[in-house]
Amino acid sequence: MKINPQDLILLCTEEGRTYLVEVSKKNFQTHRDNFDLEGLIGKPFGSVLEGAKGSRAFALKPTIYDFLMKLKRVTQIIYPKDIGYILLRLNVGPGKTILECGTGSGSLLMAFSYAVGPEGRVISYEKEKRFQNVAKENLNRFGLAERVVFKGEAQEKFDEKEEVDAVFLDLKTPWDLLEAAWQALKPGCPLGILLPTANQVSETLKAMEKLPFAGTEVLEIMLRFYKTNPERFRPEDRMIGHTAYLLFSRKIVEA
Amino acid sequence: MKINPQDLILLCTEEGRTYLVEVSKKNFQTHRDNFDLEGLIGKPFGSVLEGAKGSRAFALKPTIYDFLMKLKRVTQIIYPKDIGYILLRLNVGPGKTILECGTGSGSLLMAFSYAVGPEGRVISYEKEKRFQNVAKENLNRFGLAERVVFKGEAQEKFDEKEEVDAVFLDLKTPWDLLEAAWQALKPGCPLGILLPTANQVSETLKAMEKLPFAGTEVLEIMLRFYKTNPERFRPEDRMIGHTAYLLFSRKIVEA
Amino acid sequence: MKINPQDLILLCTEEGRTYLVEVSKKNFQTHRDNFDLEGLIGKPFGSVLEGAKGSRAFALKPTIYDFLMKLKRVTQIIYPKDIGYILLRLNVGPGKTILECGTGSGSLLMAFSYAVGPEGRVISYEKEKRFQNVAKENLNRFGLAERVVFKGEAQEKFDEKEEVDAVFLDLKTPWDLLEAAWQALKPGCPLGILLPTANQVSETLKAMEKLPFAGTEVLEIMLRFYKTNPERFRPEDRMIGHTAYLLFSRKIVEA
Amino acid sequence: MKINPQDLILLCTEEGRTYLVEVSKKNFQTHRDNFDLEGLIGKPFGSVLEGAKGSRAFALKPTIYDFLMKLKRVTQIIYPKDIGYILLRLNVGPGKTILECGTGSGSLLMAFSYAVGPEGRVISYEKEKRFQNVAKENLNRFGLAERVVFKGEAQEKFDEKEEVDAVFLDLKTPWDLLEAAWQALKPGCPLGILLPTANQVSETLKAMEKLPFAGTEVLEIMLRFYKTNPERFRPEDRMIGHTAYLLFSRKIVEA
Repeated sequence: MKINPQDLILLCTEEGRTYLVEVSKKNFQTHRDNFDLEGLIGKPFGSVLEGAKGSRAFALKPTIYDFLMKLKRVTQIIYPKDIGYILLRLNVGPGKTILECGTGSGSLLMAFSYAVGPEGRVISYEKEKRFQNVAKENLNRFGLAERVVFKGEAQEKFDEKEEVDAVFLDLKTPWDLLEAAWQALKPGCPLGILLPTANQVSETLKAMEKLPFAGTEVLEIMLRFYKTNPERFRPEDRMIGHTAYLLFSRKIVEA
Repeated sequence: MKINPQDLILLCTEEGRTYLVEVSKKNFQTHRDNFDLEGLIGKPFGSVLEGAKGSRAFALKPTIYDFLMKLKRVTQIIYPKDIGYILLRLNVGPGKTILECGTGSGSLLMAFSYAVGPEGRVISYEKEKRFQNVAKENLNRFGLAERVVFKGEAQEKFDEKEEVDAVFLDLKTPWDLLEAAWQALKPGCPLGILLPTANQVSETLKAMEKLPFAGTEVLEIMLRFYKTNPERFRPEDRMIGHTAYLLFSRKIVEA
Repeated sequence: MKINPQDLILLCTEEGRTYLVEVSKKNFQTHRDNFDLEGLIGKPFGSVLEGAKGSRAFALKPTIYDFLMKLKRVTQIIYPKDIGYILLRLNVGPGKTILECGTGSGSLLMAFSYAVGPEGRVISYEKEKRFQNVAKENLNRFGLAERVVFKGEAQEKFDEKEEVDAVFLDLKTPWDLLEAAWQALKPGCPLGILLPTANQVSETLKAMEKLPFAGTEVLEIMLRFYKTNPERFRPEDRMIGHTAYLLFSRKIVEA
Repeated sequence: MKINPQDLILLCTEEGRTYLVEVSKKNFQTHRDNFDLEGLIGKPFGSVLEGAKGSRAFALKPTIYDFLMKLKRVTQIIYPKDIGYILLRLNVGPGKTILECGTGSGSLLMAFSYAVGPEGRVISYEKEKRFQNVAKENLNRFGLAERVVFKGEAQEKFDEKEEVDAVFLDLKTPWDLLEAAWQALKPGCPLGILLPTANQVSETLKAMEKLPFAGTEVLEIMLRFYKTNPERFRPEDRMIGHTAYLLFSRKIVEA
């Protein structure tokens, strides 16, 4: 666990600000101090750095959470509070094959490809070439690109037939791809959908009523951070009020 | 994906009630109908069953989420809304080594052992033998027991030294094991703690201030289900108000 | 502040259960004990009662909050978390004239009539005669009926023209009465609407876009109780997940 | 309801921004346009103003809610979501006598004095003279100062003995004034306390256990605004995460 020149570290300041940065950058400017990263080489992760102005920072080992929070964004991303729950609902784990549409900046894709492991596979559809490129960049940084098959726009159908363990839809009109999702899914397996607005939820629920899906649930997840002063423990003054509604269902097979 | 006699299915009724049940049970009584499970053998997952009273149910393929919701409980369990987020914060993925204390009914352990895959390992400490037995039973049902090393009470120290990728503490007085957690962790790696009460959070934060940890955050996650009538979309009338506060931090290494 | 035979008291047990009960009942059975209420006569509010089985209870002075929580219900009621906020948004205070439609069980009406005082007036429309009767009963119990004018179904128009300080709508299709509300309101004054479902909110917002209203806001209020053990301070396990969305706007006057 | 030169109006822009402004100011600059207020004189409230750059704004009649949101602040204020609920729990209504400590910027005081009406009275203790002055200024602007008796620091005791209908405490160490609150209250009547941190709640609950109070409840209220686009109905991205915990209890009288 020694830090190498080409490693990424999560630089964490004393106030708790974090930066995902390459050690090869040599020098890093936070909003309050300047840190010489070369001194980290050969030291263990977790080492303390002293800045030019005397403040301290810590060279932490980046986790998948850090990558999700720090990835390059060209679209609204999906957040860890939602991603963690999606992983469990879609049964994403080592060796699974997961299909998502669309890729966006690749935040969910990064988590999927991390979780399926080297034996698993993620197929990701996206019509915007520039989103796909950003997602690839993000995946490469974390060494996960090999597990992913990128595809272009999904027009009514996916290439996959009864062969994926789960499908996730994140696009404006998911109702257009519900039949495609059904066909791609192995029988009895889960579908997840991200829906920013209540109108989209209603529209999707209406469309699903006519299709062979069962066990549909809709929910939202709220996360509230707390101040960490032990003598004055209380929630942060501001929080995220909304990211999206999540819908989960399962493919069924009528006789 | 044909159903075998020894398989587990998630039986989901038309109203959305779910039951994790073995096909070998042959016959299953829900609160409203009676289902002959033998007819499922050789059929695909997702197949529709007709009950003796004419209602329908679906034989879904159980996911890790279903196992988490349906496991045998002898203690307060940890819920998917928290577990999914913990997985990401602790960087739990294929091939990782994770240490948890205590085991409880094994809900988090089940998710950990699923996520680390066959190459990974989870070490789980628990002083109550009967909790351990229930956790083993739960793991066996999902075929995950092999990835887990069970240990008894952790007295001030864990056996592991600078060798685990993450530590999670779920016990009444986690401050007693902070130093032990620090020693077990690889440098720069994450620690997670589950804390039901605000008093425990304050106590833990106070203890951590004196130890080499950085980037500490405390938060809570709330999940609200919605009714799925597309013409009357709205949240469920009742929801879970609290499970626990979650604390995350990282081991640092002073020079 | 001595208790009289015809008084209502809020009987509060040691565990915090509360009952709104008339002293004239003489004897009151809680779920755990039996209390002789006659002994309270001539004693101050707040007095302690000892039950037949030795438990204690307290004879508190009922507040408007207690009346709201304990009123007789024939419909879904509006809760204090929402009512308190509605009072402020609608500027309900001594001497004001408020119009509401429909009455329901009269919970909001009770709060309105309490807040406008003896100089104020509340006009309440309700098409269901039996709801109106229950609301009257509830108001009489708290001595507020004199401030209220009950009316039957509002068909497209209210009787009032530019004369009320605020309007509140609580009915299934509030969009049918938006013009009526506009006509009843004094210029520049507030309108409030209670909407259980997201579909109703959308429908109402659509209808309002074509009418002379401004400053429209939509919101929801969530209340979470906490356990009161000082050594184990934490939220209650369960909470109300949803009552309704609230919409507020103001009448404007185009030249 | 014609606008007079000395009136206050709530100027509401088309985007929903609001400003509490005196018509006598003649000219008002929003962040996007410039409005000539003199043209409003003699017109009804709710009238539409056209700005120099062609945008529109509405001259609404200010409500108590508007005054609470727009008052001059020198301290953390209490917000309408909490104030409305406090009014109901403390039974604040026409003719009541309410005691609060401390005054702060006077937000709760403004709501109390509005709600008790001309027959009621509010006694407000505050040790900081400059906070008191700001509160007076805020009250004068809304014409409510006459109903309020200002007092200086409360040292262990209030002047009032068994004569107030409710007490509200908003200070750092409310446990110092619990006995004082008990003495000031009429028997059986409610006490409310605002507590920003969990530690303060625990401390207060501990102190209350030894005093004759009953029916204690602790809670928090969360408010989430929604975007008002009917085709894309959904919560705002950001919300207030915390203002304070609220504690309510009642004075009891041991024999």
